[in-house]
Amino acid sequence: MTTTAKPSAPVAIAKHIYTFAEGSAAMRDLLGGKGANLCEMAEMGLPVPPGFVITTETCREFIARDGSLPDSFWAELRGYLTGLEVEAGKHLGDAENPLLVSVRSGGKYSMPGMMDTILNLGLTDRSVEGLAAQTRNPRFAYDAYRRFLALYGKVVLEIEGERFDTLLDAAKAHAGVTSDAHLSVDALKALVTQFKALIEQESGCPVPQDAWEQLRGAILAVFRSWNNERAIIYRNREQIPHDLGTACNIVAMVFGNMGEDSGTGVAFTRDPNTGERVFYGEFLRNAQGEDVVAGVRTPQPISRLYDEDAALYDQLTGLGQELERHYHDMQDIEFTIERGQLFVLQCRSGKRTGAAAVRIAVELVEERLISAQEAVLRVSPEQLEQLLHPHLKPGSDVTPLARGLDAGPGAAVGRIALDKERAIEMHAQGEDVILVRRTTTPDDLSGMLASKGVLTAEGGRTSHAALVARQYGIPTVCGLGALRIDDDARTVFVNGITLREGDVITIDGGTGDVYAVALETEAPAVSPEFGALMEWADAARRLRVRANADTPEQAAIAVRFGAEGIGLCRTEHMFLGDRLPSVQRAILATDPEVRRRAIFDLLPTQRADFIGIFEAMADLPVTIRLLDPPMSEFLPDPVQLLREIIDLMHDDRDHPGIAARETLLAAAEGLHEVNPMLGTRGVRLSLMIPDFVEMQVEAIIGAASHVKRAGGNPHVEIMIPLVAHVSELTRIKIQLDRVAQRTMAEEGVTIDYSFGTMIEVPRAALTAEEIGREASFFSFGTNDLTQGAWMLSRDDAAEYIGFLQQNEMVKIDPTASIDRAGVGRLMRICVEDGLRANPNLKLGICGEHGGDPSSVQFCHEIGLHYVSCSPSRIPVARLAAAHAALGDRERDK
Amino acid sequence: MTTTAKPSAPVAIAKHIYTFAEGSAAMRDLLGGKGANLCEMAEMGLPVPPGFVITTETCREFIARDGSLPDSFWAELRGYLTGLEVEAGKHLGDAENPLLVSVRSGGKYSMPGMMDTILNLGLTDRSVEGLAAQTRNPRFAYDAYRRFLALYGKVVLEIEGERFDTLLDAAKAHAGVTSDAHLSVDALKALVTQFKALIEQESGCPVPQDAWEQLRGAILAVFRSWNNERAIIYRNREQIPHDLGTACNIVAMVFGNMGEDSGTGVAFTRDPNTGERVFYGEFLRNAQGEDVVAGVRTPQPISRLYDEDAALYDQLTGLGQELERHYHDMQDIEFTIERGQLFVLQCRSGKRTGAAAVRIAVELVEERLISAQEAVLRVSPEQLEQLLHPHLKPGSDVTPLARGLDAGPGAAVGRIALDKERAIEMHAQGEDVILVRRTTTPDDLSGMLASKGVLTAEGGRTSHAALVARQYGIPTVCGLGALRIDDDARTVFVNGITLREGDVITIDGGTGDVYAVALETEAPAVSPEFGALMEWADAARRLRVRANADTPEQAAIAVRFGAEGIGLCRTEHMFLGDRLPSVQRAILATDPEVRRRAIFDLLPTQRADFIGIFEAMADLPVTIRLLDPPMSEFLPDPVQLLREIIDLMHDDRDHPGIAARETLLAAAEGLHEVNPMLGTRGVRLSLMIPDFVEMQVEAIIGAASHVKRAGGNPHVEIMIPLVAHVSELTRIKIQLDRVAQRTMAEEGVTIDYSFGTMIEVPRAALTAEEIGREASFFSFGTNDLTQGAWMLSRDDAAEYIGFLQQNEMVKIDPTASIDRAGVGRLMRICVEDGLRANPNLKLGICGEHGGDPSSVQFCHEIGLHYVSCSPSRIPVARLAAAHAALGDRERDK
Repeated sequence: MTTTAKPSAPVAIAKHIYTFAEGSAAMRDLLGGKGANLCEMAEMGLPVPPGFVITTETCREFIARDGSLPDSFWAELRGYLTGLEVEAGKHLGDAENPLLVSVRSGGKYSMPGMMDTILNLGLTDRSVEGLAAQTRNPRFAYDAYRRFLALYGKVVLEIEGERFDTLLDAAKAHAGVTSDAHLSVDALKALVTQFKALIEQESGCPVPQDAWEQLRGAILAVFRSWNNERAIIYRNREQIPHDLGTACNIVAMVFGNMGEDSGTGVAFTRDPNTGERVFYGEFLRNAQGEDVVAGVRTPQPISRLYDEDAALYDQLTGLGQELERHYHDMQDIEFTIERGQLFVLQCRSGKRTGAAAVRIAVELVEERLISAQEAVLRVSPEQLEQLLHPHLKPGSDVTPLARGLDAGPGAAVGRIALDKERAIEMHAQGEDVILVRRTTTPDDLSGMLASKGVLTAEGGRTSHAALVARQYGIPTVCGLGALRIDDDARTVFVNGITLREGDVITIDGGTGDVYAVALETEAPAVSPEFGALMEWADAARRLRVRANADTPEQAAIAVRFGAEGIGLCRTEHMFLGDRLPSVQRAILATDPEVRRRAIFDLLPTQRADFIGIFEAMADLPVTIRLLDPPMSEFLPDPVQLLREIIDLMHDDRDHPGIAARETLLAAAEGLHEVNPMLGTRGVRLSLMIPDFVEMQVEAIIGAASHVKRAGGNPHVEIMIPLVAHVSELTRIKIQLDRVAQRTMAEEGVTIDYSFGTMIEVPRAALTAEEIGREASFFSFGTNDLTQGAWMLSRDDAAEYIGFLQQNEMVKIDPTASIDRAGVGRLMRICVEDGLRANPNLKLGICGEHGGDPSSVQFCHEIGLHYVSCSPSRIPVARLAAAHAALGDRERDK
Repeated sequence: MTTTAKPSAPVAIAKHIYTFAEGSAAMRDLLGGKGANLCEMAEMGLPVPPGFVITTETCREFIARDGSLPDSFWAELRGYLTGLEVEAGKHLGDAENPLLVSVRSGGKYSMPGMMDTILNLGLTDRSVEGLAAQTRNPRFAYDAYRRFLALYGKVVLEIEGERFDTLLDAAKAHAGVTSDAHLSVDALKALVTQFKALIEQESGCPVPQDAWEQLRGAILAVFRSWNNERAIIYRNREQIPHDLGTACNIVAMVFGNMGEDSGTGVAFTRDPNTGERVFYGEFLRNAQGEDVVAGVRTPQPISRLYDEDAALYDQLTGLGQELERHYHDMQDIEFTIERGQLFVLQCRSGKRTGAAAVRIAVELVEERLISAQEAVLRVSPEQLEQLLHPHLKPGSDVTPLARGLDAGPGAAVGRIALDKERAIEMHAQGEDVILVRRTTTPDDLSGMLASKGVLTAEGGRTSHAALVARQYGIPTVCGLGALRIDDDARTVFVNGITLREGDVITIDGGTGDVYAVALETEAPAVSPEFGALMEWADAARRLRVRANADTPEQAAIAVRFGAEGIGLCRTEHMFLGDRLPSVQRAILATDPEVRRRAIFDLLPTQRADFIGIFEAMADLPVTIRLLDPPMSEFLPDPVQLLREIIDLMHDDRDHPGIAARETLLAAAEGLHEVNPMLGTRGVRLSLMIPDFVEMQVEAIIGAASHVKRAGGNPHVEIMIPLVAHVSELTRIKIQLDRVAQRTMAEEGVTIDYSFGTMIEVPRAALTAEEIGREASFFSFGTNDLTQGAWMLSRDDAAEYIGFLQQNEMVKIDPTASIDRAGVGRLMRICVEDGLRANPNLKLGICGEHGGDPSSVQFCHEIGLHYVSCSPSRIPVARLAAAHAALGDRERDK
């Protein structure tokens, strides 16, 4: 686990602070993303309030000094503050003309909501009166003061935020209003008094009435927040280094809450849900930014602003276009209107859905703002994955229970969980979960990630829940006002219907509809932009992408998704269904000849299976894994049989059905293994009872011969599972090669076939040099390789894997993404040694990790030739492979 | 697998052949052991018949040339043959004065009976008459001729040997005699005619009547026999390189079958069973060497020779002493008496039992013939292991069924198997086997190795069976003349009793007694020589040796065997027996508080357990492994419960016992895991339900405090099992350290304790750098590590492991001896990375491999600090560790 590392004390820092005029967008490392963009916008002449940035280096110094800053810093700060006061024409803490500032965190990488920010700093009992007099708006002044007190109390003095919310709710109830904006000045003054009392009682000292002291406290609190728990968890998850530190932005406050000619909002230069080139966003009259982001009040669409003040709207959209051309990407802009005057408080590349990412990237190429390769890199494989998220199957006539806001990106079905703990718990038990909350906060993230979908009662399309929905591709409906949650009764109430925690619902993040039943979902159609992007990705990547497909139907789907072969054709299913009786006859046989006949009864049907697959794949390679499971999987479970016997005995102690079950039971018990995963299966079973695989090879070569005679050109790769020792492969190869040669002779056709092995047993990876000499190809079976390396069964230890993740003991779920330190190390050893022994060795992966973007990146890094994954994930793998290759190109520059 | 590698063609060889005068004992590589010793004995002036040696290099040339030799070789051979003829004063194939030679294989390392030898070569229809006339003994001449024909037919012309035996048996039956020696000359002449007819019929051509052609054929056959199947198998097993080749010794024949003044025998300079310094051996009048070795006729003890011809006896024993002083070791001497004249045909270091090896080595030191370190190297750990073989518990009054020859080295109990196939099969099924044969041949070796003991009807103490008994420490009784075997009925008949294959018998290799029942056995007492040898071994070794001991009693035994600590104290047993109800109460509890109380009910008894162990170990370190198995192991098996329910239902459908079983069944099914070895156990269980291990740590620290207060000085190493990821160790350590600190505070005592981990999960070895930072020690749990690396359960795949061994697909059983290529590589990685992260890391092994000599060698090589094994194997491990260290010293020279 990465934990916070304490950087060593830096040498004396000459310059801790940069004004917006001194910095630029190129200085993200030093000024953080937010600070660097503020500088850049100031440079561009955009209406940014005056301010300055304290560097990330200062934060690192703060940590190295165990939470203090040197006198030289405070002296420097004094100087920059004076400069700001001059520029703003106001003085911090002044009784007549007070300067208020925001103190905002902002690291190199966006960590939305994870660190702290303080607004309206500089208000004291004296300066609040000055602000009231100066603005001739006491209501505004006291509203700002109560906001400041709550935030300062919470962030600097670490008092629980809910304590302030409770007092605010009580004040609203007392006044009989529902919106903060409708509280009277007297009510606000009373709140200020209550907040001050609460702070003094909880922290033992009042909020400083010296504004300079307030500023000191706020800066220290912002730096402290770099290492708060949720920020550390977030960085672990996003793999952001812990030693970067945050910058601290001090900006003169502008006010969106100065009356109905003021407001605040968030805008995107294109629609972040669809990617359409329309100005998109929301704003709230008479509000500060936190009201929008927190989703406490439901904002208006940005188009209303055009109706109300077309000039200002045009200024805003023009500014958006300028920023987009400047940054070559869709921008997310925070703005405030103070008494009709527009200010930009922040801009950054906007988060977007997968569909929007694809469309924006492709359109930016068409607009000649970026290259095709840049476009490929602009869409993350995770975003592409969202495109492949299911939506509701059309044609259902179920009436929605209610409709909220369509926060994207698809539809989800699952059981209601009312808090993150319950969501994680249910997820660990294998349940699909819909997390239902009044509103979500950054604290809820782990619960949201454990859920298939999220439903909130409050908050708009730019609320936390909606942001997370887009970023992580979690289907989300937000702002469902009709929703009431009873945390004690563990129920939710919507439009007259009461649902309990654990009940199944369906949400459609594309429409906002919520259903009280489980509806069917299906995969989405793909856009033309998607096709263009995939073409560019294919041109860029080195890794080939194959599919795991077991049937002709799956093979056909795989080819449509762009598969360049089958990397894993499992053959277990060819022994099930109406073929099971033959298999059971073989297992129960005591005479080897009877057994062999029963097994060869399956030859014609298996031959037909393979013909279908070879036809579907035309001249692409097909890797067929020979029979893998232990014999016991073809017999009923002994416990089940015994239960059936007990049931029959309840009817009749001598029920005739008992004897047949006793026969099966004897066989099942004979074949019973305490740990079947470590037992007689795969090549072990094939060596001891070769009939099954001899029949399979005859069917494979026979099928290939049939297809070739009909004009096809099949390429067959026969894969031996569970090899641990080279002698296993050597011996079975000799045996099966004989069958293949004989079958070719009988068919009179020469087939291009080769033998290779799964690498799924740790020892096989460790002895790849020996095994590589005997194999034409290696295919990493990372499912079993992971279970073997960890000695951890996914099925038996699911709860434990959940425990590891809940407790942040592992960065990734090793069953989903390749564990590089353990399994990945085995793979590296194997590739290196295997190629040394056999430079022509073909290397691939066919475990489920083959469709995981981070794992694809790793497979590229270690030099595999292809990845193989489920058909629906092929586009994700193709894009991930392109990213990996383009990343190499970047490094080579 | 190592298989026969074809050496590349050598450059032209200048000299293929050495006379005995040209060679010496130092030339074993070139002349083989037998040839080099013949040269050495000739040099010493001992009575060796004249001869020469064809080099091992010639054999390699033969293989490289695909089974031919260059003309230059044959020319060289002609020259040496002429020299030999001159020296012997006879001519090969001569009609009047024929020279007969033996053509014997003999590689660098002894491979007894594995390669071919031809005697009496040079006899033809003409020369046999010359021999008869010259010796005035036609009976002798035709006896030699028939022997030669049979051997040549079998070895050179590859005719089944039994065909000749059948004719011989018929001839004896026809003549009404039981011994070959009593066949008349006419009978022998008739046999010669029959043998020649058989050969011509089977091989299509007669035995060459040109003696030179015979010689050519014999030499090629000897070289060919280097790569016969049983030789390859033997070399694989003994790890003898396949590319050495054999030498070929051509020696003028001397005859022990020239009448009653002739004979042949085998002698040891000390007793190979006990090591006592007495001349020991057997001889047969009027016989050739093969009669002794094959055990066809039962020979006389060597002491009889003294009675019959004291001078000759003295010459023989004097010669033995000379050889012993020369070679500094007990010698095994083959000799022949030809008409009263003694010839030595071979000498070599004699095979001996473990007890003899120890006694001889120690006495040779006392006699100042070797150093103490040489003595240590003279006893193999496998031999020491024999010392620790069980013998029958005294005091039994069971009468033996019969008594055969006491071929050593101990007693064994097992089921009768009548051939090697059945023995291997029964062994694979986990049975203890006694292999019962008329006589054993090198072909039987694999069956003997699969058996606990061997019983033969024929053959003496120097027969094949007896040699193998000593070499491999397999308790053996041979020469039980009363034994009749019916291969068709699969029965044996001894003294009126018929036993079937599969019946249990007991054999005592120390007395020769055979019992028709299973008797109790016990470990032997140790000799003073043993103590001396172990002292020297301890002085030489670097590795420390600890014991796997779970109870105070085992700990006490371990200390007596020389344990330097406990490397593995398992604690599972502390939850069983009368403690099981508390454990089951804990498992069935739904309330966490109830569960914790049930678990802490065990605290006082566990504390007492640990007190006993700490007291037994005084100030030696004790490594305690915290609870490892999954919870399901403390509940009955569901299938068993269901069967009980069915049984009860047969009595009464509503039997009151059913409900209790249903309760247990529900719990057992809830905890059921498909692959418990890969499930929730070890540290996984401890993290999810910490109560068990918290109680254990409190018991451990409490017990240590108690012992320390009483004046003891316990050193506690707490071992966490099944760690796969460093975060598991980090987290549990924090939790348990808190318990330990609290307990020490309560006890008011400071205990020397530390936390470390088993390395038994492949991933732990692969991430040793991270884990090493958190651990004080690593202990390789090679049982699970092997099962994980191979993904092969010893229990479930026992039959498959047997299959691998039977088919020679693996050199060693990886569950018995460390698989260096796979598991060993993981261990190397782990040691290297662990020490890099933590140079103070203590490294040990506690898997069963810790008592296996080859594995101990490997542990020494990779730099472990100690091995831990079962108490009874500690001396073996101590000696193996000394060998490893002395081997290093040799290499450093």
